[in-house]
Amino acid sequence: MEKVNLKIKNLKKEIVNIFTKYGLSNNHALVSANALINAELVGAYGHGLSRLKMYCDRISKKLINPKPKIKIKKISQSISHIDADNSIGFIAADIAIKKAIQNAKETGVGLVAVKNSGHYGLSGYYAEQAVKKNLITMIYTNAPPAVAPHGALKSLFGTNPICFGSPTGSKIPFILDTSISMINRGKIRVAARNNQKIPEGVALDRFGKPTINAKKALQGVQLPIAGFRGSGLAWMVDILSGVLTGGNHAGRVKDPFDDFTGPQNIGHLFITFKTNLFVKNYNTRIKDNIRKIKRLPRIKGVKEIMYPGQNKFKRFKINSKKQIKISNITKKDLEILKQ
Amino acid sequence: MEKVNLKIKNLKKEIVNIFTKYGLSNNHALVSANALINAELVGAYGHGLSRLKMYCDRISKKLINPKPKIKIKKISQSISHIDADNSIGFIAADIAIKKAIQNAKETGVGLVAVKNSGHYGLSGYYAEQAVKKNLITMIYTNAPPAVAPHGALKSLFGTNPICFGSPTGSKIPFILDTSISMINRGKIRVAARNNQKIPEGVALDRFGKPTINAKKALQGVQLPIAGFRGSGLAWMVDILSGVLTGGNHAGRVKDPFDDFTGPQNIGHLFITFKTNLFVKNYNTRIKDNIRKIKRLPRIKGVKEIMYPGQNKFKRFKINSKKQIKISNITKKDLEILKQ
Repeated sequence: MEKVNLKIKNLKKEIVNIFTKYGLSNNHALVSANALINAELVGAYGHGLSRLKMYCDRISKKLINPKPKIKIKKISQSISHIDADNSIGFIAADIAIKKAIQNAKETGVGLVAVKNSGHYGLSGYYAEQAVKKNLITMIYTNAPPAVAPHGALKSLFGTNPICFGSPTGSKIPFILDTSISMINRGKIRVAARNNQKIPEGVALDRFGKPTINAKKALQGVQLPIAGFRGSGLAWMVDILSGVLTGGNHAGRVKDPFDDFTGPQNIGHLFITFKTNLFVKNYNTRIKDNIRKIKRLPRIKGVKEIMYPGQNKFKRFKINSKKQIKISNITKKDLEILKQ
Repeated sequence: MEKVNLKIKNLKKEIVNIFTKYGLSNNHALVSANALINAELVGAYGHGLSRLKMYCDRISKKLINPKPKIKIKKISQSISHIDADNSIGFIAADIAIKKAIQNAKETGVGLVAVKNSGHYGLSGYYAEQAVKKNLITMIYTNAPPAVAPHGALKSLFGTNPICFGSPTGSKIPFILDTSISMINRGKIRVAARNNQKIPEGVALDRFGKPTINAKKALQGVQLPIAGFRGSGLAWMVDILSGVLTGGNHAGRVKDPFDDFTGPQNIGHLFITFKTNLFVKNYNTRIKDNIRKIKRLPRIKGVKEIMYPGQNKFKRFKINSKKQIKISNITKKDLEILKQ
């Protein structure tokens, strides 16, 4: 696939221009552009520019509201409920994490639920914001059906990420942001196109039999990590981010790329708390924790035991100094959207 | 292995007598006996009577404090910190979940950290208490080294369970209580004794190579679920229950069965919140969620799609009507401890 190089600054300007053309305020356009570019820089391309056209299409079809009237309801000093009025997900999440940070700073703990939102990209991106303010955070969101509940022959759970962030006493935060599916659907699609096999244990065919045939897997279902346990974790995320918040759940979140019958109405949950609630020396303690683990004897070939977030941070650092490579398809999207 | 049948009521009396003989108050002895018997009834035998002798041994060696001075520090209306003074874990956890319930009832959200505690049995047992009070709960505890961090050749993380509980609008609560190790160490021990193979992908030999030889696995390390992701989840639990709370972490929690060089100083974290903070009809919503998932087409041979906690509830119901079967070894323990 051919790639085109673009300067980050120019690219950001272009995205901001496109989003404002589609009706977003300057500020909302900038927040959204930053989130998309961050996804490119950390190497999460599935959450980056490849989604720009989808967002614009959904705005055109009035499924994303470019001028949302977002309501923040104060339940208590610690707890807030946000009705995002089907804003682009980035804005809902940005407001929510800032509110969760504020609540935790004021009371020690923050609990912020969001309903009527959309796909917001990477949970880890918002976790980083809380960690930079020296808070621990846990973030949950659901997503369109991709994974079958344990025992089922049909997808219902999203890839439902579990996200946890903590300060580390160094500038590289601990950010765990892990989907509960064995493999990305995108990877199965690529394998099917190239007649490649997929690994064992990641998918079933449409009869419920394990398959390593990518085409059969596409007709079947993807599996959660660790069988019943991963299925349970996905279910937990659906409850926390959907049932609890007032968002869609039980497989009703629409696929943003190919279901234009209504808004996504996704729910998110943001939990934040101070690191020094119970110990005075949290940073010393977690530094010691990480050091102890990094010093363990390693499996042959493993250079360093990495904590979650380290690799992403490294990629971000390296990529920030370079131009962003986008595919020709995405480049064409940009050209069309600009017009 | 020969088994002996005992009436639940008589067995409970015996355990209470033993614990009081070892210096626990009547109330603490009863709370502990109830936890042990519950583990037997739900079929979690590794957390049941097989541990009774270990608890008594640790009391004798002054590593568990039978007369703890437990301090509950109020951080805010929502947040409490408990120093369990190395009580038997059941007591620390029982006080903590009750406090977390109280805090959530008063303010909507509860956050309770415990330090200087010990093994408390099943997280799900405490989660049930919160769910019975119509709260959602998340519970984390660490444990002695059993699982190698991703890339490491030495165990450091405990089986570090992730526990989540929610009301369901029915009498069977949603209780996810899942360890992050692929397999129980006990199962590997049994396989080694019987010269049986263990499944692929659950353990490495001492050189870091995957093995299905149980004896080689015992000399090596157990693997977390889902590789880097499961390792990250275990690390998260170590941070939440150890680093944050003031408890031991980074592999310093001692094995209660074979390390008598000091108390365990385990930490736990209990998070609770009301179900009706953001929606009025939570029970209706979760009933709908579960119904929708249960109605999915099923893989051949699967009779019912079960939610986490359903099987355990069923076992509890059935076993509560029967006598408890204990092994001859445990029966002998009881006889000796009674004297």
